[in-house]
Amino acid sequence: MKRINKITGNISGIDAAIIKKTQERLDNLTKPLGSLGRLEELAKQICGITAKVIPQLKNKVIFTLASDHGVTDEGVSAYPKEVTAQMVYNFLNGGAGINVLANHVGARVVVADMGVCVDLKPDPRLLVKKINYGTKNMSREPAMTREEAIESICAGIEIFENEYRKGIDIIGTGEMGIGNTTSASAITASFTKKPVEEITGRGAGLDDKGLNSKINIIKKSLVLNNPDPTDAIDVLSKVGGFEIGGLAGIILAAAANRVPVVIDGFISGAAALIAYHIEPKVKEYMIAAHCSVESGHRIILNYLGLKPLLDLDLRLGEGTGGALGIGLADAAVKTLTQMATFKGANVSEKNK
Amino acid sequence: MKRINKITGNISGIDAAIIKKTQERLDNLTKPLGSLGRLEELAKQICGITAKVIPQLKNKVIFTLASDHGVTDEGVSAYPKEVTAQMVYNFLNGGAGINVLANHVGARVVVADMGVCVDLKPDPRLLVKKINYGTKNMSREPAMTREEAIESICAGIEIFENEYRKGIDIIGTGEMGIGNTTSASAITASFTKKPVEEITGRGAGLDDKGLNSKINIIKKSLVLNNPDPTDAIDVLSKVGGFEIGGLAGIILAAAANRVPVVIDGFISGAAALIAYHIEPKVKEYMIAAHCSVESGHRIILNYLGLKPLLDLDLRLGEGTGGALGIGLADAAVKTLTQMATFKGANVSEKNK
Repeated sequence: MKRINKITGNISGIDAAIIKKTQERLDNLTKPLGSLGRLEELAKQICGITAKVIPQLKNKVIFTLASDHGVTDEGVSAYPKEVTAQMVYNFLNGGAGINVLANHVGARVVVADMGVCVDLKPDPRLLVKKINYGTKNMSREPAMTREEAIESICAGIEIFENEYRKGIDIIGTGEMGIGNTTSASAITASFTKKPVEEITGRGAGLDDKGLNSKINIIKKSLVLNNPDPTDAIDVLSKVGGFEIGGLAGIILAAAANRVPVVIDGFISGAAALIAYHIEPKVKEYMIAAHCSVESGHRIILNYLGLKPLLDLDLRLGEGTGGALGIGLADAAVKTLTQMATFKGANVSEKNK
Repeated sequence: MKRINKITGNISGIDAAIIKKTQERLDNLTKPLGSLGRLEELAKQICGITAKVIPQLKNKVIFTLASDHGVTDEGVSAYPKEVTAQMVYNFLNGGAGINVLANHVGARVVVADMGVCVDLKPDPRLLVKKINYGTKNMSREPAMTREEAIESICAGIEIFENEYRKGIDIIGTGEMGIGNTTSASAITASFTKKPVEEITGRGAGLDDKGLNSKINIIKKSLVLNNPDPTDAIDVLSKVGGFEIGGLAGIILAAAANRVPVVIDGFISGAAALIAYHIEPKVKEYMIAAHCSVESGHRIILNYLGLKPLLDLDLRLGEGTGGALGIGLADAAVKTLTQMATFKGANVSEKNK
């Protein structure tokens, strides 16, 4: 817990003076005032986060954390749990959606095993931070111990800090874990108090019967474990996942280092909830990439007061929406830093 | 008119068989079925347009057409009309928003003078297709003659065809013309029959008084000219602009050559309306990049049945939203063509 407290102690508010300067710069660029809309808001936020008048988004990193969930024993996913490990190999071989979209925006993908339930083949590109071989079945017992929850967050901090030494200007969150929308739904219900029915979606593709069963499993898990929403570590340990804890750690560490965090989908949103309930100031460092098809995601975004950049009916996870969000953040910063000014381009300003 | 008829005669429906094949390919990629949402729809549309199973979006072109509008004499814009010419130089010098965003997505910008009201300094990078020195003031007389309207569309066709020889896989539409939201509003009112008040926005930044005056000018122009919505050339000539006619020509020529067209904002939308009313099949070739702050734009998108990819409160024009849309189209095609299949990556499929 000391390590987490040290990180949260380093998170300060974003820089209001820089944001003001950025607004002045934006208003001098050759375009009608405010005409780049949310790109201008995004540029200002990134300047405020980085405390730089001319930020550069050169090093883009997407952290894709994988882990298994014991609750899959209850049949909450349309896919077998072997897929978690299989997809890790797919990430390493460059064949997954996140690989393609990260390449598209010039981001590198960091893949970590936070708790896949088998030992994966050693690979120099794979970070092994296995907290355990999958979580326990949360509908029968807590998903993990309190120590494991803390350990998962600390592992996330370590993953970020290690990668930060190689250069990071912006990050995206991503994950893979068969069964993890079930965990994300339970986390969301714990914090937002919204009905489980409203929060729970079809994940990777449940039918109606599967969805009803998933809702019941989540309700049962919440009654059994009674997670304490005033204690984020308790929520994480009772109904969370190791990849979700790891992402919460990454989000906190990014904020402590003034790095913008592009939040991907529903599971990343659940990690954002954990991070926010550990240190609310972290919210200012978050950029919501998109709004997922999973209904719980919009509930998280509303709860955190984040407005998604994209609404493309995505529900893949892995960091795919985050990658597209990083592309837009890059575009926003480029307009701020590369466009000509009215004076520089000899363009007349607005009629008085 | 012969040239326009020749082009429209070459526009056929998009390829349904290819779309079916693309769906099969998408369903074999390592992701839950349909989980890339609108990116999958976009990939299918592009395959159908290009009639290619593995399309490539290597050559991306944004056409930014500039022209002046006589109706600026009535004070319908917050910016002086000199800005049209000044911004053309800014485009050529690479300092405008469209330059930055086109670079961001790897697109080249083709700039054409369709009717700027001054002679611009000769520049090998500038296409000069000047139909006239700005349109006439449409609140007092038709904006242009019928011959000029046809000429502007033909010039657009020529601009496309000339550039097509250098290689084009996808295009974005863009424009610059002080006063052109006034023209776009009048065109939109003519075709959609919606009240001018609902269609008309603040353009580059009018205040309430300016907005009211703009609405009255548009109403007056429509009453005076009585454009015939069953005759797109009549609408273009009565209340259009040379850049709008040019873009309509570009849209038609792109469709005739099976090239996807990413429609930018409100003015590009008005050009899309003209093109659609010349040849309705052209709609299938259109991708709506975003929904502008200009209220008339959503009316156009609904009228054409196009769903915008982005909703970022943009209202700059130039093709800026189109550039971002091209970036998403590129991402969509890359996921289709570069992701691994379940079989290839040894990933288990959905539980039966």
